[in-house]
Amino acid sequence: MTTFELTKEYIEKLEAAIEQKDEKLLKAEMDELYPADIAGILLELDGAQGHYLITLLDTETGAEILSHIDPEVRKTFIKEQFTVEEIAKYVNIFDSDDAADLLNEQTIEVREKVIALLDDREQARFIIDLMYYPKDIAGGLMQKELVKVNSNWTVSECVEEIRRQAEDVEKVFAIYVIDDDQKLQGIVSLKQIVLARKNTKIENILDDDIVFVETTAKAEEVAELMQKYDLEAIPVVNTLGRLLGRITIDDVIDFITDKAEEDIQVMAGITGEAEEDDSVWQLAKARLPWLVVGVAGSLLAATVIKSFEAEFQKVAALAAFIPIMGSTGGNVGIQTSSLIVQSLAEKTGITTSLWQRLLKIILVALVNGLVIGALAGAYIYLIGEPDLFLVVCFSLLSVVVLASFMGTVTPLLLDKIGVNPAIASGPFITTANDIIGIGTYLIIADLLLHL
Amino acid sequence: MTTFELTKEYIEKLEAAIEQKDEKLLKAEMDELYPADIAGILLELDGAQGHYLITLLDTETGAEILSHIDPEVRKTFIKEQFTVEEIAKYVNIFDSDDAADLLNEQTIEVREKVIALLDDREQARFIIDLMYYPKDIAGGLMQKELVKVNSNWTVSECVEEIRRQAEDVEKVFAIYVIDDDQKLQGIVSLKQIVLARKNTKIENILDDDIVFVETTAKAEEVAELMQKYDLEAIPVVNTLGRLLGRITIDDVIDFITDKAEEDIQVMAGITGEAEEDDSVWQLAKARLPWLVVGVAGSLLAATVIKSFEAEFQKVAALAAFIPIMGSTGGNVGIQTSSLIVQSLAEKTGITTSLWQRLLKIILVALVNGLVIGALAGAYIYLIGEPDLFLVVCFSLLSVVVLASFMGTVTPLLLDKIGVNPAIASGPFITTANDIIGIGTYLIIADLLLHL
Repeated sequence: MTTFELTKEYIEKLEAAIEQKDEKLLKAEMDELYPADIAGILLELDGAQGHYLITLLDTETGAEILSHIDPEVRKTFIKEQFTVEEIAKYVNIFDSDDAADLLNEQTIEVREKVIALLDDREQARFIIDLMYYPKDIAGGLMQKELVKVNSNWTVSECVEEIRRQAEDVEKVFAIYVIDDDQKLQGIVSLKQIVLARKNTKIENILDDDIVFVETTAKAEEVAELMQKYDLEAIPVVNTLGRLLGRITIDDVIDFITDKAEEDIQVMAGITGEAEEDDSVWQLAKARLPWLVVGVAGSLLAATVIKSFEAEFQKVAALAAFIPIMGSTGGNVGIQTSSLIVQSLAEKTGITTSLWQRLLKIILVALVNGLVIGALAGAYIYLIGEPDLFLVVCFSLLSVVVLASFMGTVTPLLLDKIGVNPAIASGPFITTANDIIGIGTYLIIADLLLHL
Repeated sequence: MTTFELTKEYIEKLEAAIEQKDEKLLKAEMDELYPADIAGILLELDGAQGHYLITLLDTETGAEILSHIDPEVRKTFIKEQFTVEEIAKYVNIFDSDDAADLLNEQTIEVREKVIALLDDREQARFIIDLMYYPKDIAGGLMQKELVKVNSNWTVSECVEEIRRQAEDVEKVFAIYVIDDDQKLQGIVSLKQIVLARKNTKIENILDDDIVFVETTAKAEEVAELMQKYDLEAIPVVNTLGRLLGRITIDDVIDFITDKAEEDIQVMAGITGEAEEDDSVWQLAKARLPWLVVGVAGSLLAATVIKSFEAEFQKVAALAAFIPIMGSTGGNVGIQTSSLIVQSLAEKTGITTSLWQRLLKIILVALVNGLVIGALAGAYIYLIGEPDLFLVVCFSLLSVVVLASFMGTVTPLLLDKIGVNPAIASGPFITTANDIIGIGTYLIIADLLLHL
């Protein structure tokens, strides 16, 4: 395939064709593209145009396109453009996990109507089962579609089951083996089915040493397990060990990338899920909370500085070193906390004790503090303010050590109380360290210079 | 399975058993664990202990364990503990991509010796083919192991080929169909093989509408394609369209998480790949470069402030607002640049023109600047410094707009010249905005107060 590249010209061509209701051209053009690419095109069209384009295509393709649209965009698009009958037509052939997600985006009223309208009653049952789970646990990521066989079946009975399920289960990966109580016994790979003799019993070829999760397992944990053991799909069971569904790797990848994006936004001090193409007002709103925290912190710092007003009048050069205290504190704090956040996320190895961690971090801080102090010291010598030499060097060393301490303890505390520790790598730590840095500096100056 | 939890007690028990060379206990314990878990245990043992433990187990398990160890750790572990004969024994049964990675970590001398010692000559050829590719392109991610069949074969010939390759190709996913010139024609899923009749020709069931990449495609691009089209494996071809290998989803997930971790470190101002459990010296070294940049920037700011020394002596309260200018500039700069970096990484939709982007960002900046200015203004009114009201409000507005501008233009420029734009979300932008913020403030103060 040649990768599809979306251009302004192409969109204009489509818009013109939609305007003229040129069905033949539109169908021919869409036939060349994958549903994921068409989903990208819809983002550039207005709602009515997008609805017209989707309804031109067959239901199968339409459903695939809808499953590829970003949930936030889809929510409004579906609500504004589609009738419940239309929604039901697409939801009918969605994978059950995608169907539950789509319906969870809509109002209860729409949900109920759509479920009542579904032709496929098994699908309706699947969806009702799944809608109940929050999105961030295994139950919320799993789909009901899978091929399951009884351990006392033969390979040819298993092939028949695959044939029966072929339409519903697009990607088989592995066949799940259960006992008479629906309890998960193991898996058989498709490769084994291809290679085994027809009358072989499934119980003789099944792999019972498998990794599975319960519905309540956290999404992070599922992602970690699938990545660690290189799994394409992981079975989900209830507390009794009964097979309820499976989670496929594509949903977990989406979770991993969303999580990384979220962490980066948290670090950058952006609240909510902002995208560059949001409206001016949405973008401003997403940034304001942390900007306000930053400003509040800086005004607190201003109050501290103002209370040393007399000292500044005596030694005006003191003001020159305010920025270095604030920014060094901020930088050191972010560096330290992001390493702690990372090690919390990886959860590998034995957890080091808090004291060992702190000792090491303080040692690193001393090394860095000495280097930075030396640089600043050289600068002070050059500009001819020898009085400030001791004050600045000693303050920098203290700031680096204090900021390292804060950067270690804050994410650990946040993690303990169940808050995303990445927050500690954002404006929060910068602001706190700004104040601590400047306060430390002024107190040390006061003490050493006897102002 | 019950998820394995590594404890200090467990490690001590293993260390004691290794000390006493208690092979029976060790083998029994390791038999309970997955190779990925044993790889985690090795990180806690010293090199000689790890080597002893691995060599106790069968070669298959040993190879799987080695393929799960972090490359940085493995490099030294292999170099210090293993003979070339031992390395060859494991590399012989590695997947070709992992084998090439492992050998690329070692010296040319070791590489040559190991390749010469390999029993499996096909594996040797595979490895030599792969070692040539850099790690960040499709060629460097692909493995040679796959099942390929000619389009004029029948399904039962295809099953025979799967049987022949069964040992080498652990996960089949799909069967690749080629013509007499080795050119990729399409794929057939294992499900289709299971369901098709034995004498059906492959050309009648193949799917020729497939996504593939050339060896030179960037790893980012591969990851994006596999995620967009929900692929578990993607075939890799040369410029002539001949099938050379395939990339499986597990390698791409590792790439995605490594990339996210790298971006977060870049944002936090940490150079190289630091981990919390690195040595004090390594950790200090990874942080120093950006700390020094930060200090240099702050000293530049100090010079700017010092040149306004006379003004500070006249209006001492001026110093109180230095931190708010610096930190607001930094916060706004990071927020803006991280959204730009994110939209660069997503590459979805049509690229907005620079002017549209700037216009929008400036509008967002004006909204935020007004809110922040109002807050600071209220504070100034409260502390009774009405002279500074206009200066601080006007400066804050300018700083927010300037920092937004910088935060937009810097990552776009870096991306254009081929540098990771995430750098622009790190200490670089904070430092630059510190200086710009403080400079702007002092110039405005000078102009408005006629000092």
